[in-house]
Amino acid sequence: MKTSLDTFFDPKSVAVIGASNTPGKLGYIAIENLMKIGYPGKIYPVNPKVSEVLGLKAYPNVKDIPGPVDVGLVLVPAEVAIGVIADLAEKGVKHAVVVAGGFGEVDEKGASRQEQMVEIARKAGMRIIGPNTTGIISSPARFSTTFQAGVELRPGPAAYISQTGNFASITFKWILSKEHFGISRVIGLGNKCDVDDADALEYLETDPETKVIAMYIEGIKNGRRLIEVARRVAKKKPILALKSGRTSAGSRAAHSHTASLAADDTIVDAAFKQAGIIRVRNYMDLVNYTKAFVYQQPPRGNRVGVITPSGGLGVITADACESSGLQVARLSEETLERFRKASPPFIDVGNPYDIWPSVSLVGMDEAYRVAIESMFEDRNVDAIVAGFMVTKGFTELKDNSFIAAASRKHSDKPIVVFATSEWEMVDRMQADLENQSVPVYTSPELAVEALATMYRYSVIRASL
Amino acid sequence: MKTSLDTFFDPKSVAVIGASNTPGKLGYIAIENLMKIGYPGKIYPVNPKVSEVLGLKAYPNVKDIPGPVDVGLVLVPAEVAIGVIADLAEKGVKHAVVVAGGFGEVDEKGASRQEQMVEIARKAGMRIIGPNTTGIISSPARFSTTFQAGVELRPGPAAYISQTGNFASITFKWILSKEHFGISRVIGLGNKCDVDDADALEYLETDPETKVIAMYIEGIKNGRRLIEVARRVAKKKPILALKSGRTSAGSRAAHSHTASLAADDTIVDAAFKQAGIIRVRNYMDLVNYTKAFVYQQPPRGNRVGVITPSGGLGVITADACESSGLQVARLSEETLERFRKASPPFIDVGNPYDIWPSVSLVGMDEAYRVAIESMFEDRNVDAIVAGFMVTKGFTELKDNSFIAAASRKHSDKPIVVFATSEWEMVDRMQADLENQSVPVYTSPELAVEALATMYRYSVIRASL
Repeated sequence: MKTSLDTFFDPKSVAVIGASNTPGKLGYIAIENLMKIGYPGKIYPVNPKVSEVLGLKAYPNVKDIPGPVDVGLVLVPAEVAIGVIADLAEKGVKHAVVVAGGFGEVDEKGASRQEQMVEIARKAGMRIIGPNTTGIISSPARFSTTFQAGVELRPGPAAYISQTGNFASITFKWILSKEHFGISRVIGLGNKCDVDDADALEYLETDPETKVIAMYIEGIKNGRRLIEVARRVAKKKPILALKSGRTSAGSRAAHSHTASLAADDTIVDAAFKQAGIIRVRNYMDLVNYTKAFVYQQPPRGNRVGVITPSGGLGVITADACESSGLQVARLSEETLERFRKASPPFIDVGNPYDIWPSVSLVGMDEAYRVAIESMFEDRNVDAIVAGFMVTKGFTELKDNSFIAAASRKHSDKPIVVFATSEWEMVDRMQADLENQSVPVYTSPELAVEALATMYRYSVIRASL
Repeated sequence: MKTSLDTFFDPKSVAVIGASNTPGKLGYIAIENLMKIGYPGKIYPVNPKVSEVLGLKAYPNVKDIPGPVDVGLVLVPAEVAIGVIADLAEKGVKHAVVVAGGFGEVDEKGASRQEQMVEIARKAGMRIIGPNTTGIISSPARFSTTFQAGVELRPGPAAYISQTGNFASITFKWILSKEHFGISRVIGLGNKCDVDDADALEYLETDPETKVIAMYIEGIKNGRRLIEVARRVAKKKPILALKSGRTSAGSRAAHSHTASLAADDTIVDAAFKQAGIIRVRNYMDLVNYTKAFVYQQPPRGNRVGVITPSGGLGVITADACESSGLQVARLSEETLERFRKASPPFIDVGNPYDIWPSVSLVGMDEAYRVAIESMFEDRNVDAIVAGFMVTKGFTELKDNSFIAAASRKHSDKPIVVFATSEWEMVDRMQADLENQSVPVYTSPELAVEALATMYRYSVIRASL
């Protein structure tokens, strides 16, 4: 299905209005970024004062561009943006990204400016993303409208919809530099004068590059439509959302930031529930929980097998499971028997399974191999949380490939790993396992909560 | 004040019973660790089968050691530990660390073994730490009983009391490899057959090396005494505690791990409140919140000045403040005027203060300098949360030393920083600022919660 947004994410040509030869200026960085990421379409700089920008022929006005223009990237200030939108309309451009602030989020004058702009666009059948945003990153198309220097791409199955473009860029940079998964699309909606969350979801619904959707929302404009669309999308793809402005202090801040109106937070909760949207609480949840969906399948049930590198972490992990709606599984007799065989005689094995006594008997690799494989094969276990303390020369696994191998063999049962102790080793283990699609967290609670979020999605999907 | 525990943390000599020449054995690693960290006291290996261990003269029995022995480190299995304790008693040793498991945490037989051991010790006026633990790390004395390979030390003001030695070691390694603060003492209590949480707190109360105390607790044995002692200690030093086994799954796990009995969790909450202990919920809180106390003073009030690198993060940070008992401060007119002067004319400045518009006018360093200094000087502000998005060549500060300088000048007002975006830059900023005593977190909520925990301590201290 083709939506009216498709062209934003795979344009054959882009006009950059406000292109500049001055390094550091938005109109310079935006074009530099497009070149750097190897955008294969046509780039038309627009600036009446120069004949070339970054070696590309520049045009005084978008109307002077000889060929068709798929996307207009509007980098000029709010005062002149309306004129530019009119020019784009005349040229027949159907997609515009308006970056400038100074619209609905500042004052009445800005709000009326925003209305005028939308009116022109509506008449011309043009869709607008923004204003007050950094816009789009579309990894598969090697396209970006961002004016933040040094954008890089790593395609992957996670998509981000964010009210605030800056927020989307920050999260994006973090994922590319600290995590190992890739991103299909980033959609910075800004003031949502036209394109809103529901439109973005509708586009991602059929986007073959996107498997999981994470959203940052400050204000909801057309709640009924959002619920309707999200409910349909959530049947196919998990939607995680951080809705801020949930306290009175936050809500005041949201109003001055994106002109978002306060909403009673219990109403937001109810709406999300109806929409099948999984609400998350913290900024980093949008990274941590999304990661679990990128690498693993949601579990069929909530019975968890827990493997830990210390009894203490076992107790903590069990607490985390029960607190987040998961059950510590009652293991089958076969599994317990396998654990007993791998442990010293006086050890009372169970779930959580503390690996330490077994390590002293059969070594680190074998102890974990038995633990993980037995848990995967146990009919009473729907998902696994496996903890590691990794320390150079002391608690290193010689070869950790059996973890991903077991995960691939039992792909209907998710596994999440937490690793702690020596940072450098933890970091390496994360890279290792995530490159084999096993998500790694640095605390037991984070791993458990990521798994619990996947379980929430299983329940939601079944209820839609 | 000298407590009966002092010698554990600064012994002039240690007998290692169960010393071994086999690399990887506990009795080898423990001695290797002592040598590696440069323990300046005497090490007496005890093993009847060899004459030397790691180049040190070995003795068949602790009673054969010519000089006095301050600490007996008992590394032999539970079955023979009682005999060793009797020998230590005869030798006049007043402090023993018993590492072996196989006591109260396994079965009735083990429990009776534990009782016998304690009886012998009591009669001889000997204190025992353990059994079922890795024991002690005492950085200032360069002393450790740990059998985990490759122990390193970084002295500092944070002390860890942990029921489970393995847990303490894991956390310890994490702090040394990922954080920048140092640790004074680690006390792994294990089964707490004799020395318990209250004893450990009492020791740390007057320990000049310790400024903040973090505890991991599975079971509480003498609750009344713990409350009494903690209440006294908390007047001088903050006590943070993670009490696990708070759910039924966790409580079952705790029982099989350290024979800890289930306690109604609401009773634990009430007891901690009475004791002035700050209860934390997550494993990493023991690192993250402790860090704030290491570097900064608790605030006098809860009015927070919030500086963020994006409007979205401002909203999220405001939510986090209000959710955790902090107030987003109403800034003075002077502060707002300073912000206005540093911002473009159409910007409506306030708290949270989004730095971005000001950056476009006065640059990154100056925008943050004005923001941070104004907040510190504002009488309506008790504490500061400052957020940064750090990206190479785009949002780098040229020189971040003004942050620590302002913090030193206003040491009665704590500042906590969060940094995100490009991982390598975040990591460097953390090292930079923390080496100047400004704590850095990787999410707004973590920074706010650390600050809120300091505020909780201010309130607790005033109430004791």
